[in-house]
Amino acid sequence: MDVDGQPTRSIALADDGWGVEIIDQTKLPHRFEKVRLEDWQGAAHAIKAMLVRGAPLIGATAAYGMALAMRDDPSEDSRAAVHDALLATRPTAVNLRWALDRLADRLAPLAPADRMAAAYALATEIADEDVALCRSIGENGLKLIEIAADRKEAGTPVNLLTHCNAGWLATVDWGTALAPIYMAHNAGISVHIWVDETRPRNQGAGLTAWELGRHGVPHTVVVDNAGGHLMQHGQVDLCITGTDRTTAHGDVCNKIGTYLKALAAEANGVPFYVALPGPTIDWRIGDGVREIPIEQRGGDEVSKVSGLTDDGRLAEVTVTPPGSTVANYAFDVTPAKLVSGLITERGICPASREGLLGLYPEQRDTAA
Amino acid sequence: MDVDGQPTRSIALADDGWGVEIIDQTKLPHRFEKVRLEDWQGAAHAIKAMLVRGAPLIGATAAYGMALAMRDDPSEDSRAAVHDALLATRPTAVNLRWALDRLADRLAPLAPADRMAAAYALATEIADEDVALCRSIGENGLKLIEIAADRKEAGTPVNLLTHCNAGWLATVDWGTALAPIYMAHNAGISVHIWVDETRPRNQGAGLTAWELGRHGVPHTVVVDNAGGHLMQHGQVDLCITGTDRTTAHGDVCNKIGTYLKALAAEANGVPFYVALPGPTIDWRIGDGVREIPIEQRGGDEVSKVSGLTDDGRLAEVTVTPPGSTVANYAFDVTPAKLVSGLITERGICPASREGLLGLYPEQRDTAA
Repeated sequence: MDVDGQPTRSIALADDGWGVEIIDQTKLPHRFEKVRLEDWQGAAHAIKAMLVRGAPLIGATAAYGMALAMRDDPSEDSRAAVHDALLATRPTAVNLRWALDRLADRLAPLAPADRMAAAYALATEIADEDVALCRSIGENGLKLIEIAADRKEAGTPVNLLTHCNAGWLATVDWGTALAPIYMAHNAGISVHIWVDETRPRNQGAGLTAWELGRHGVPHTVVVDNAGGHLMQHGQVDLCITGTDRTTAHGDVCNKIGTYLKALAAEANGVPFYVALPGPTIDWRIGDGVREIPIEQRGGDEVSKVSGLTDDGRLAEVTVTPPGSTVANYAFDVTPAKLVSGLITERGICPASREGLLGLYPEQRDTAA
Repeated sequence: MDVDGQPTRSIALADDGWGVEIIDQTKLPHRFEKVRLEDWQGAAHAIKAMLVRGAPLIGATAAYGMALAMRDDPSEDSRAAVHDALLATRPTAVNLRWALDRLADRLAPLAPADRMAAAYALATEIADEDVALCRSIGENGLKLIEIAADRKEAGTPVNLLTHCNAGWLATVDWGTALAPIYMAHNAGISVHIWVDETRPRNQGAGLTAWELGRHGVPHTVVVDNAGGHLMQHGQVDLCITGTDRTTAHGDVCNKIGTYLKALAAEANGVPFYVALPGPTIDWRIGDGVREIPIEQRGGDEVSKVSGLTDDGRLAEVTVTPPGSTVANYAFDVTPAKLVSGLITERGICPASREGLLGLYPEQRDTAA
């Protein structure tokens, strides 16, 4: 997508053809700084310190990290050690393991001299595949926005609400939930996005608002508390969120607070769609509420808020009293019955086992 | 309630019998500073700059402000001018007008020499009446917590969830939503309170957590996004919130985000009660969703967050990107059908016209 008119990906090869450029997302939305990675240690640090986040982007960064490692030392010892080191940066990231396994399968059989070129080629393939996946999600979701636009009076925008950041910053380009929105905007459909702040980490206020703004998409930041009121008063035509993990029955695990918006959407007759790449479906699990363990993260994410001080420094302030306990549940599960449909790279389907198997028939034997 | 063992009201006469002590609530939860008011200008500033907030506390502060004015100059010119000046501090605060009208009715007929004593007496009466009202709300709501406690296994606390601050800091003592909780805690019932952060102004994280902590009530601060997940997993036995305005049909206008919690409570079979003093019922209005205009406040409350820096200063940080529009809806309306019951000073009733008229039969002719 564009950053003030300049087409930008969240990760890309530098002009010299070997350095890797990422965006330091820890400084967004206050500072837009690209960071050049020149060795695998830099890539590992970028993942670990969350300069890059979002499953697809983590996978692509690890892949380019391996390419940088093979440029320095393509030996088998080096390959195996870097594989393990990169895998350890975010142990629970499924895309990370998947990308590294693909690299291992491709590189291990090769002579060391051939590994650098093969690693760069595969890293670029992984990044480009993600872009294609997200583009397909965007094209499929675009139809929903076109239908909503046809129902609006001329000159009034389609109002969409999204939660957290499922935009190009979380992927390589386009994003998942935001891909249909960028497609609609690029096609000249008038859209306006309600951006949930998304406490505790503020990925809505910090990342979604930033990327929509830089691409020129009209949007308004609201606190997470506001969405119910907006839907009650007809100010939301359509909700689209992303998801970290979708069960074979269509339950959706996503950033904490998604469930509350789905409840409000159902109560007010607002369609609630979830955009996802097929690979994030967990076919082994049926009942997401019972079966998905919800990660609890450190309380500091709740008790401290990061931002820009009046004199232009990045700082944290504490918002809770000393001695108060804090709990930080990172995700929640929205039951399939609250989800109007799932937007995938293969099309839109009902949030149900039969709906998903209609698009992914090859999973019929594995689906819970 | 207690502040670290010391019984404390949000407003009280000083030991010398004429100065008025309040708490500078703008510095909570980081600094507990009492401020001594010695003239009506100080009282006006305290209301305007929100050192005091909450309808009952604003009314009591204005009443003591008039008493301080009568101490300096009990003439009719002075009385009338101070009346207007105090009324202008928060033009939409219903309790403020009500307190000042009561003072005018009592003071205007008196000889100037008699006004100071009468004003102090009435200010104390207004404060004590509020304490009695809140105590009755607490006694009535306590029954709900006792019933919930009877259903819990021995040794496990009753888990309550509250939104915003409807505690003693918003009233003179006890609070509304928190009054039953303090009563239960004081009676030795084991309770644990989930405290919604309550963005954008963080009155949950800042005020509710502080006052519960100082009184020794176990509690945990969570982001506003977390309540749905907690209720889905049986971690909430009962919700109690306050309200700014209740309609004759039982619709509840309260801090933005209350509606989302009520939806989650209904979806998960959790009782959702609202505590209120009878005088906050707006008998002229029936349908709160259609008829109550929702105040939009300045965007800075959303885009900036106040807190304590690592080096101990109170500061604000900006969390949104430059150029992003921000909307700040202050309240929402929870339809009566989502409310399990209303806890008033006269008892608990269904959230309906007939329910309310059962407790307030004198309103039958005025109720919408």
